[in-house]
Amino acid sequence: MPALRIIARDPASRARAGVLSTVHGEVRTPAFVPLATAGSVRTLTCAEVAALGYDMVLGNTFHLFLRPGGELVERLGGLHRFMGWERAIITDSGGFQVFSMGHGTVADEIKGRRPTSRGSGGGAGQGSILSIEEDGVRFRSYIDGSERFISPEVSMAVQAQLNSDIVLAFDECTPFHADRDYTARSTERTHRWLARCLDWRAAHAGPGGSLFYAIIQGGVHEDLRISSAQAVASSGAEGIAIGGSLGQDKPQMYEVIDWSTRELDRLAPERPRHLLGIGEVDDLIRGVELGIDSFDCAMPTRLARHGTALVADPANRWRLALDRPAFVADEAPLAEDCPCPACVAGLSRAYLHHLVKTGEQAGGRLLTLHNLTFIASLMTRLRDAIIDGRLGEVAAALRAGN
Amino acid sequence: MPALRIIARDPASRARAGVLSTVHGEVRTPAFVPLATAGSVRTLTCAEVAALGYDMVLGNTFHLFLRPGGELVERLGGLHRFMGWERAIITDSGGFQVFSMGHGTVADEIKGRRPTSRGSGGGAGQGSILSIEEDGVRFRSYIDGSERFISPEVSMAVQAQLNSDIVLAFDECTPFHADRDYTARSTERTHRWLARCLDWRAAHAGPGGSLFYAIIQGGVHEDLRISSAQAVASSGAEGIAIGGSLGQDKPQMYEVIDWSTRELDRLAPERPRHLLGIGEVDDLIRGVELGIDSFDCAMPTRLARHGTALVADPANRWRLALDRPAFVADEAPLAEDCPCPACVAGLSRAYLHHLVKTGEQAGGRLLTLHNLTFIASLMTRLRDAIIDGRLGEVAAALRAGN
Repeated sequence: MPALRIIARDPASRARAGVLSTVHGEVRTPAFVPLATAGSVRTLTCAEVAALGYDMVLGNTFHLFLRPGGELVERLGGLHRFMGWERAIITDSGGFQVFSMGHGTVADEIKGRRPTSRGSGGGAGQGSILSIEEDGVRFRSYIDGSERFISPEVSMAVQAQLNSDIVLAFDECTPFHADRDYTARSTERTHRWLARCLDWRAAHAGPGGSLFYAIIQGGVHEDLRISSAQAVASSGAEGIAIGGSLGQDKPQMYEVIDWSTRELDRLAPERPRHLLGIGEVDDLIRGVELGIDSFDCAMPTRLARHGTALVADPANRWRLALDRPAFVADEAPLAEDCPCPACVAGLSRAYLHHLVKTGEQAGGRLLTLHNLTFIASLMTRLRDAIIDGRLGEVAAALRAGN
Repeated sequence: MPALRIIARDPASRARAGVLSTVHGEVRTPAFVPLATAGSVRTLTCAEVAALGYDMVLGNTFHLFLRPGGELVERLGGLHRFMGWERAIITDSGGFQVFSMGHGTVADEIKGRRPTSRGSGGGAGQGSILSIEEDGVRFRSYIDGSERFISPEVSMAVQAQLNSDIVLAFDECTPFHADRDYTARSTERTHRWLARCLDWRAAHAGPGGSLFYAIIQGGVHEDLRISSAQAVASSGAEGIAIGGSLGQDKPQMYEVIDWSTRELDRLAPERPRHLLGIGEVDDLIRGVELGIDSFDCAMPTRLARHGTALVADPANRWRLALDRPAFVADEAPLAEDCPCPACVAGLSRAYLHHLVKTGEQAGGRLLTLHNLTFIASLMTRLRDAIIDGRLGEVAAALRAGN
């Protein structure tokens, strides 16, 4: 049985709505996946994340590998039990984070622009790469300076210890500043590492019924993206992720996604597709139209912790920065008719401004709840629109701030 | 009608159980009052605080006066509406915080030992006192360096703007290092300021039906405490708080409380009594036995944010410091049969250790919920025991960690 059951397709775009089956329940797609980088969706309890309607969160292999370690999480019953989350978990492979150390500011420029959010979105802090070899990557832990090694096999083993529902291949996340030649060689290595990931999983019988997603790399080069999509589609992976540099602006990002999903529509139309580290509102809408089934991104939760709410205001990138003096005495709620705890309690922008300015943790927390409510509602509207055959109309309304 | 309706008295101690009536509902006593210093019980939403069973929180006049300001809170409908809390609010007067600036490390030594927790418990940060006169105190704001003035009248006006249910008198909180002579003169000034507070309230008709608590000072000197209790009891204040230095150790603290409540039993037996800044488990038990009706303290919430859980372990001051390596792989919950969200979700000490070590805000938040659950349960047991005539037995069990 395929992992993804597609229940509707939009006739005017490549969008699809479906149900992704995992060991820990179904994920309604298209889906946004909040980050639980180190085993916690920041500021929230798992009960709250579930109450917001999310079916899946993303754990980070790199960070959990270093602390508390895969063995410990396994001994304590796996990541679901460890963190108290009963629904699905997808785990990043650690490739992005470990290469962030080597590529310097890769996290800041991996998409050719602002920091994005794959994994923790911020690379690996104080750590440093000691060597990158065909075998794997040797590096210093940012926690205690100890020498550590990660490879396709280590990543697969750790993700099995975490008992992840969706395992990502260990890849090199090629940075935007890499030239075509480097990107081509890097993508080739990612494909060889993909084969090793699959070998490990074959030897360990696809641990725990988990799904395995291969990753398309190839930077901003159409031929590399297409050949990577072909390699990935022919690998037998149950799902496919799109990673690496997606370009320096949104038109280029959409083009890169388009190359990839167009090839996948031809070669692997039924397989689920995850877009790594993307989550701005307009990108989610466009990604859905281009045939993406799931997304993860730090943006909604990170913005919240920095005092910014997501609101239906496309002219301001859907953002309301509550630390601005304009909100000192603003009695309005964050949004009318919003079902989040802050808006339901009738809390004013003035109060949230106050919490942000005083550094009260409740501010970041209320905004996290609001932003994840906003994104959950967005994804539900997109999904329902596909099912109802009204995606064009709904996407236009969303883009107009309605 | 008296503010406090006493419904039971313990025959073997001076403990009483009652119901304190405020404009914003009833407070079951003896009660613990969590701090909402700057208009937020740190890390929690007001809905969560209410769900924990708390009838009242404490707001801080000094901090709210400086930011966002009493005028703004009034314009936005008062503190209840501003922060979304529908139950009772008691507000500290600002005396403790403003004098903390002048008395240097007063916050660290006000009880002759570790920092306690009246108001924010930490004095006033970068601010500094410019002058202390009979009229009031001139100081620099720790927020923007501006020159500000606070006096009995200003404190009363700000507490009225906040729409506090229980207003505290503006007092000088005499530090532990002050000699008897200074303490005596300071206590006299506190009594003169009390008269000015009452004058202001008489001229403003006891704003909004609020209750007014006078404060007993007098340091660790029996005669000063008793004469202060007499002055306060004869003032006509609806309630009485005990403030200032309570001594250098617990026996001395209990003695100071005993002097005060013994005199109050004689002169004002029906009036509610609040003990400022005290909240360790054994202190709460003893305070209840000595006839205290309500307590506030940063301890349960501050300990939580620093990674420590409250548990039934008197040998370790009821504390479990989760950052210790001993908990790395501890599968046990914080406490058996605890109804807090962390324990109900079956989260392990190992997971909370992990959250504390990684600095995840969810750690401090889950521990805040746990600690406030622990204290709520403690207070409920004490109250029920008084009503059932079993306080001696229950207090002994609690002191034994049962």
